[in-house]
Amino acid sequence: MSFEEFQLKNLQTPALILDEAKMMRNIRRLASQVDSLGVSLRPHLKTVKSIEVARRLLTDGTGPATVSTLIEAEVFAGAGIKDVIYAVGITPQKLDRVADIRSKGCDLAVILDSVAQAQAVADASARLGLAIPALIELDCDGHRSGVAPGDPILLEIGRVLDEGAAELRGVLTHAGESYEIEGRHGHKMFADRERDAAVQSAKALRDAGMPSPVVSIGSTPTAHSARNLDGVTEVRAGVYAFFDLVQAGIGVCDLDNIALSVLTTVIGHQREKGWIIVDAGWMALSQDRGTSNQRLDQGYGVVCDEAGQVIPDLIVIKANQEHGIIALRPGSKGQLQALPLGTRLRILPNHACAMAAQFTQYNVIPADQEAGLHAWPRFGGW
Amino acid sequence: MSFEEFQLKNLQTPALILDEAKMMRNIRRLASQVDSLGVSLRPHLKTVKSIEVARRLLTDGTGPATVSTLIEAEVFAGAGIKDVIYAVGITPQKLDRVADIRSKGCDLAVILDSVAQAQAVADASARLGLAIPALIELDCDGHRSGVAPGDPILLEIGRVLDEGAAELRGVLTHAGESYEIEGRHGHKMFADRERDAAVQSAKALRDAGMPSPVVSIGSTPTAHSARNLDGVTEVRAGVYAFFDLVQAGIGVCDLDNIALSVLTTVIGHQREKGWIIVDAGWMALSQDRGTSNQRLDQGYGVVCDEAGQVIPDLIVIKANQEHGIIALRPGSKGQLQALPLGTRLRILPNHACAMAAQFTQYNVIPADQEAGLHAWPRFGGW
Repeated sequence: MSFEEFQLKNLQTPALILDEAKMMRNIRRLASQVDSLGVSLRPHLKTVKSIEVARRLLTDGTGPATVSTLIEAEVFAGAGIKDVIYAVGITPQKLDRVADIRSKGCDLAVILDSVAQAQAVADASARLGLAIPALIELDCDGHRSGVAPGDPILLEIGRVLDEGAAELRGVLTHAGESYEIEGRHGHKMFADRERDAAVQSAKALRDAGMPSPVVSIGSTPTAHSARNLDGVTEVRAGVYAFFDLVQAGIGVCDLDNIALSVLTTVIGHQREKGWIIVDAGWMALSQDRGTSNQRLDQGYGVVCDEAGQVIPDLIVIKANQEHGIIALRPGSKGQLQALPLGTRLRILPNHACAMAAQFTQYNVIPADQEAGLHAWPRFGGW
Repeated sequence: MSFEEFQLKNLQTPALILDEAKMMRNIRRLASQVDSLGVSLRPHLKTVKSIEVARRLLTDGTGPATVSTLIEAEVFAGAGIKDVIYAVGITPQKLDRVADIRSKGCDLAVILDSVAQAQAVADASARLGLAIPALIELDCDGHRSGVAPGDPILLEIGRVLDEGAAELRGVLTHAGESYEIEGRHGHKMFADRERDAAVQSAKALRDAGMPSPVVSIGSTPTAHSARNLDGVTEVRAGVYAFFDLVQAGIGVCDLDNIALSVLTTVIGHQREKGWIIVDAGWMALSQDRGTSNQRLDQGYGVVCDEAGQVIPDLIVIKANQEHGIIALRPGSKGQLQALPLGTRLRILPNHACAMAAQFTQYNVIPADQEAGLHAWPRFGGW
C-alpha cells in the first residue's frame, strides 16, 4: 500500500479528492498559453470556491478574478482579492451588496445586457455616490445572454452608463457553445468569434466616443485554443484547474489531467446483473450528464482504482441519491472485476463544477508526496 | 403587496422557500393513511435534513426515523431522535461510527444484503462488545440492492447475524420502481409487492427459528396507495413532506401540494428567442430531470409567481450553473408574459431531495400567516 493509499484509507466515503500536482500542471498550462498571447488571465473561481485554490490560480493572489455569485465576491474580497468581475447579469436588488463589497476595497464590476439594467446601475451609482463599473455582455454564439454583435442597443446601453453616474468598464463575452463541439479546430473558431464580437463592440463604443478599457473573452475550450487575440485585454476560464470528462470528451484535456474525483466504497453487488453498488450516488457525484451527447457517453463518471488509475470499461451507469451503480460500459467486451465489499474506488466527474459543489471540503493529495493528505475548505451558497 | 410578498422581497435570490402550511397538510395526510393501516410510520429524513422539519415529521420527536447518511444519524441523534435505520448498505469501514452513535443512546440499525456484510457486522459487534442491529434488505422489484425473494442466501445472512454477536432486527424493502409508473393502481400493486416480499421473507426467517421483529417497507408512492399491510410493522417514506413534480406527475400529489420552491429573480431576456433569464441555474434548482420520461416533461421546473401561483405554460427549459432559462413549454400556444427585469418568481422542483440539497437554509413561510418569515438551517455531507 502506498503512502497515498494509506492516507485515503482513513477517509470516510464519499469524499472529494483533489490531486494538487495535476491541478498545478493544468494551471501552469493555461497561464503559459494565455501569456504567449499577450493578454492577461482572469480565472473564474466558480468551480473551485476555495481560497486555497484561488491563491494557486491567481499569480499574485489579488486578482484579476471572475465569480458567479456575490458570496464568492464577498469571500474572495475578504481574502484579499481586489479585482473581480461578477459575471452573471446584475439585478437592481443586488446593487447595494455590490456597493458594500466595493466599499471594502475590492474593485468589483458587474455585467449587463439591457438598458433597464444600465439604468439601474446608473441610478444606484448616483444614489450611493460611487461609480459602479459595468461591462456590457455580448452574445457571440447564441448560447444564452448578451447583446448581439452589431445591435445598436450596445451604444444605448453604453451611453446610459457613460453619461450617468456609473462607469462603462468595457465589454465581455463567453462562447458557451464551444463546449458542444469536439476538437481544437472548432474551439479556435469559437475563440475567433469571441474575439471578433468583443473587439468589434469595443471599437463601436470607442467610435461613439465611449471608453472600453476592458475587452474580456473566454471559456475553457477557447482559452486553450486561441492563437490570435489582438484587441482583447483578458481571457476568462474556470474549469481548467480541475478539468473533467466533458472537457476530455471535446479534446481540451486527457483523462489523466483530471484533478478531481470522488472516493467511494463498494457496498454491494447484484452479480447476475453485473452491478457493483457504491456509496457515491448523485448526492456526491452530482446529476451532471454532460457527456450524454458526446461521442463517448461516460454515464455518471469514469471509475478508477483508489490510486486514481482508470479501470477500463467501467462507468457509473446509474445514480440514486446515495447509491451509485457501476457496470461495464454499454457495448463493452471487457471483464467485470470482482471488486469485493469495502473496495475503495475513485470516480472522475462529468463536470467538475457540479461535483465539487456537492462537498464542503477538498481532501488534497499534495504535490509534495512527502506531505500528508490535507483538507481545504470550500464554500457554497449565494 | 401581501405580507408574504413583502417578506420574500427582502430575500436575496436564489433562495429556498418552504411553505409550512402545505408541508403540514402533506405530513398529516400520510400519517393518517398509515395509521388507518395499523402500522407505524418511519419517515425518511434524507429529504429534509433539518431538525425543525424532523420535529414536525416525527409524532413524538424521538422517532422512528430513517436516514441515508451517518451524518444524518449523528445530527438527529444529537437532537434526541432515538430510533433510526441507516437505510444504505453498510460497509465494514463505517461500523465504528455506527457503534459510536449507538453508544450515545440512539438505537441505530444498519441494512445489508450479503454474507460478507453480515460477517463484518457480527465481527464488529464481537470486537466492540455490543450487538449492532441489522435488517436484511430485500429486492422486491429489481430496482437496486437487496436479496431476491426466495433466495436461500436470506437464511444464510440471517444465521451469520443471529448466531454471531450481531442482532437480526428483521427485513426491509423499498419499491424504487414505483416512481416510474403513474397512477394509484400501479402504486398499490408495488405496495403489495413490497408487503409480500417482506412478509414472506420474515416468515422464512421465523420458520428457520430466527427473529424478524421489524418488517419494514415503503416508498412515497406505495405508502400513499397501500390498502392492506397485514404482517408489515412499519412504512417508510421521505419526499412526501415536500412533494415535487415527479410525484405530481405520477399522481401521488397535485401541483398545489408542493411545499418547496426556489425564489429567483429575472436578470435578462432574449426576446426574439422567447427566453426569460433568471438567477436560478442548476446550482439552485439541481440538475434533476426526473420528469423527462413522464407524460408531461416539466423541464428544470414549473414557474410560479412570487406568491406561489403556477404560471401556466412556463417552465425552465435550460439550466446553466447560475442561469435558468424560462420559456413557453414546448408545444404551448400560450402567451409569454413580459416579466420585466427584477421580477421575482418561484420554481417548483422536479425532485425535492435534489433541490433542497443545494441549500443550507429553508426560508419558511409559516403556517401562522401573522408570524414572520423565518429561517430553518439544513445540513449536508456524510
